[in-house]
Amino acid sequence: MIRVHEQDNVAVVVTRGGLPAGSRLEGGLMLAEPIPEAHKVALTDLVAGDAIVRYGVPIGYANRRIPPGSWVHEGLMTAPAAPPLSDCPLATAPPDALPPLEGFTFNGYRNPDGSAGTKNILGISTTVQCVAATVDYAARRIKADMLPRYPNVDDVVAITHPYGCGVAIDAPGAAVPIRTLRNLSLHPNFGGELLLVSLGCEKLQPARMIPADALTVLDEEPALAVMQEARQGFGEIVDTITGLAERKLEKLNRRQRVPCPASDLVVGLQCGGSDALSGVTANPAVGFAADLLVRAGATVIFSEVTEVRDAAHLLTSRAATPEVARDFVREVAWYDEYLRAGGADRAANPTPGNKQGGLANVVEKAMGSIAKAGSTALMAVTGPGERVRQKGLVFAATPASDFICGTLQLAAGMNMHIFTTGRGTPYGLAMAPVIKVASNSGLAARWPDLIDVDAGRIATGAATVEEVGWEIFGTVLEAASGCKKTWADHWGLHNDLVLFNPGPVT
Amino acid sequence: MIRVHEQDNVAVVVTRGGLPAGSRLEGGLMLAEPIPEAHKVALTDLVAGDAIVRYGVPIGYANRRIPPGSWVHEGLMTAPAAPPLSDCPLATAPPDALPPLEGFTFNGYRNPDGSAGTKNILGISTTVQCVAATVDYAARRIKADMLPRYPNVDDVVAITHPYGCGVAIDAPGAAVPIRTLRNLSLHPNFGGELLLVSLGCEKLQPARMIPADALTVLDEEPALAVMQEARQGFGEIVDTITGLAERKLEKLNRRQRVPCPASDLVVGLQCGGSDALSGVTANPAVGFAADLLVRAGATVIFSEVTEVRDAAHLLTSRAATPEVARDFVREVAWYDEYLRAGGADRAANPTPGNKQGGLANVVEKAMGSIAKAGSTALMAVTGPGERVRQKGLVFAATPASDFICGTLQLAAGMNMHIFTTGRGTPYGLAMAPVIKVASNSGLAARWPDLIDVDAGRIATGAATVEEVGWEIFGTVLEAASGCKKTWADHWGLHNDLVLFNPGPVT
Repeated sequence: MIRVHEQDNVAVVVTRGGLPAGSRLEGGLMLAEPIPEAHKVALTDLVAGDAIVRYGVPIGYANRRIPPGSWVHEGLMTAPAAPPLSDCPLATAPPDALPPLEGFTFNGYRNPDGSAGTKNILGISTTVQCVAATVDYAARRIKADMLPRYPNVDDVVAITHPYGCGVAIDAPGAAVPIRTLRNLSLHPNFGGELLLVSLGCEKLQPARMIPADALTVLDEEPALAVMQEARQGFGEIVDTITGLAERKLEKLNRRQRVPCPASDLVVGLQCGGSDALSGVTANPAVGFAADLLVRAGATVIFSEVTEVRDAAHLLTSRAATPEVARDFVREVAWYDEYLRAGGADRAANPTPGNKQGGLANVVEKAMGSIAKAGSTALMAVTGPGERVRQKGLVFAATPASDFICGTLQLAAGMNMHIFTTGRGTPYGLAMAPVIKVASNSGLAARWPDLIDVDAGRIATGAATVEEVGWEIFGTVLEAASGCKKTWADHWGLHNDLVLFNPGPVT
Repeated sequence: MIRVHEQDNVAVVVTRGGLPAGSRLEGGLMLAEPIPEAHKVALTDLVAGDAIVRYGVPIGYANRRIPPGSWVHEGLMTAPAAPPLSDCPLATAPPDALPPLEGFTFNGYRNPDGSAGTKNILGISTTVQCVAATVDYAARRIKADMLPRYPNVDDVVAITHPYGCGVAIDAPGAAVPIRTLRNLSLHPNFGGELLLVSLGCEKLQPARMIPADALTVLDEEPALAVMQEARQGFGEIVDTITGLAERKLEKLNRRQRVPCPASDLVVGLQCGGSDALSGVTANPAVGFAADLLVRAGATVIFSEVTEVRDAAHLLTSRAATPEVARDFVREVAWYDEYLRAGGADRAANPTPGNKQGGLANVVEKAMGSIAKAGSTALMAVTGPGERVRQKGLVFAATPASDFICGTLQLAAGMNMHIFTTGRGTPYGLAMAPVIKVASNSGLAARWPDLIDVDAGRIATGAATVEEVGWEIFGTVLEAASGCKKTWADHWGLHNDLVLFNPGPVT
């Protein structure tokens, strides 16, 4: 079993397959009943009202007596309320900077704006849903007929989406999807090149999606295809797009990887399909890697407002300045209101699978989730879809929904992605390499061709958090250099991007 | 020029390329300024405050004097407020039934539940976004390696989507995407077969998406693949899906088209990228075809709440019963509140392209839009994503956003789709044939390999509304029989489905 904090009165069973009743744990405690793997056992005698403490914080309160050795599950506890935002301590305990790590590099693609790419991709952006099927048609042709002639170009990625028309484009929420599309289009892995396809009559006109002041990121003006300008049918439309693509492919193909300092990495962290081991194996190992990356000067982004909400007070106290803490409170307050307006239920997170995996409620999930963020000071907070410009640990506010979070982290400029999972999910993105880290060795053994790193070895004692953290750090540098192919890239498992549109459709 | 109603004090210029100043119209009126094609000319002397009448109703009020022969554009008029729902007349003037049309049939696929398919498709449904890339991978393999051995199966369609987890699954709005996914999975063009892929730990569990009482539509229990049950990695996951697909393909391949009465058709109507001619050419011709279909006993679905909102009073009076009228008011009131809560702006519809195309505001757009619905009584109203069970003209409430509307009409059971456009859009769906009708011959000439029917001939006098209406009716029967391939199917222009989720993401 693993007990995370000295004040904890529960521990997590880490034996594969769980433990039967009568099993005797370290310290002599005997299990009163069978306890599944990754679920919690009571270490002390708890009476109704007692705090159930994990990670050193109350994750709930006993709603009846729980004798030592009992299985502490969701039904025996009441979740605490989310910490009130008005009481959050502002930058009261920012951690001291860790010693810098020098000399770590990766081979990346240098961009005109100074950023670095980890892939060399022809990106095709779109203003509106209407052009999606046509752009997919053209992209299939470009991949099949042209890409083989440009061996230095890794991929062709069409950013198609359901936005751009039939939406309340002046509503308060519209800024989010519009800036997301803009920042996706200017992603570092597109090399400062942009091919943009518009229908012509849509609400989201090209100049609104990519305004002139955003063009400084690009090598030249975007290559623009407006479908309604075609005078000779579908063939002309496709030829226009493929013709522009060929010019871009020629330019992209002349690029070479060059050594870049690790500080050019923008690493996004996320978890999905978590279990109770996520918070003691995979997420702490990623947190250690996050600290290494921050020490090397990189940007590390964590997100998922709903899954850090219950740890808000711990994050605001870690903020580098009261201003950063207030930015955090502002984003979380916005999300609280968004959920309230939509009638969302706090109990609907965690998922059925999270619960089977031993996570009793969203508080326990949140405490495990923020372990990914390591131990450094929170340097900045950005809104959904905004580009992150700061180095160090940054909170980019996003929903926890996996592909919305991934999309918004890409818009933030993420060029490497680390994804932890306990239940198992075949997550992948086309625009940046995704390293999948398993929280338990059972998953890593069942899915050896989907999981990149097995952090379950921490539970079995086969490796330490630090060892797995260094392994993740090394894997990031290798995958960013194109030397190591992630399993998602091996299979081409590339999920569609999903926009976050808090505004109404019309 | 075309004047629609005898009370109209404006008419629409239909000359290709518009008319110069000084042009003399029928009746001797001289143009005071150049007027673009599809835009409006003042027929009488209007003073500030006068109603500008088109389709026999005020589409706005002059905000200054407008002499005869002037260009009547958006800047010269104030839009009227939307008709208050509390004043809508309830079933005060339901039209008499038109004489039945007997003997029209198409060759379709008869389903176990009595419905008919217009295509014979292997549908692969999914509970959650996490499985999307894997299902796409498997579907590509099924299409490439298996489908050629099953010549009677038209296609393999994977319904992937961003719903199922990371969403407020118990929020009030959640019913809409869940029932949409359910009804899409049970679509008549899937032949009563269902292959469902689940991750395992998601909020939208298979039994919640397809509850037992929905299974009566199916030939047998759905074939279910749960990815997290795989013990041997990605290969096993893909083999499970393709193995289940092979069994379904064998069954589907044994099906044959049989003559079905036209009453088995469920025809969805939609417009996108409209111009001012849409309301005098394409939409009235579709309206005439809609009447023919209703006379033949079919179901005709129209939708797009925001684009019929300003004609609400005209539709409630046409309802067959006060109950149907009240159902209509209920759906429109729900949408009014949804838009208000999201801060949507009434002025953001029409689009920039609509306005260039001569549509001054949403009132004028709505009056043109409802022309698609023909002249028969409104028999029923359904909520977004609900299955339509009634015959005759039905209003299925949906947003106007093109692919959300199309997705919800498919969920309603649509097996044929008619789509009108003036500006031009390469719309297409995989699950049902889409017939695209151009409102102007310029578009039909420019895009001959995307537009199926040219209704612009009505403006030039080359055909009547009735002639084009019969042509559309005939094209529906041919395409439903698989004899005529629509241009969207010819090119494989199949846009992704887009769910309507009025609830929050988490």
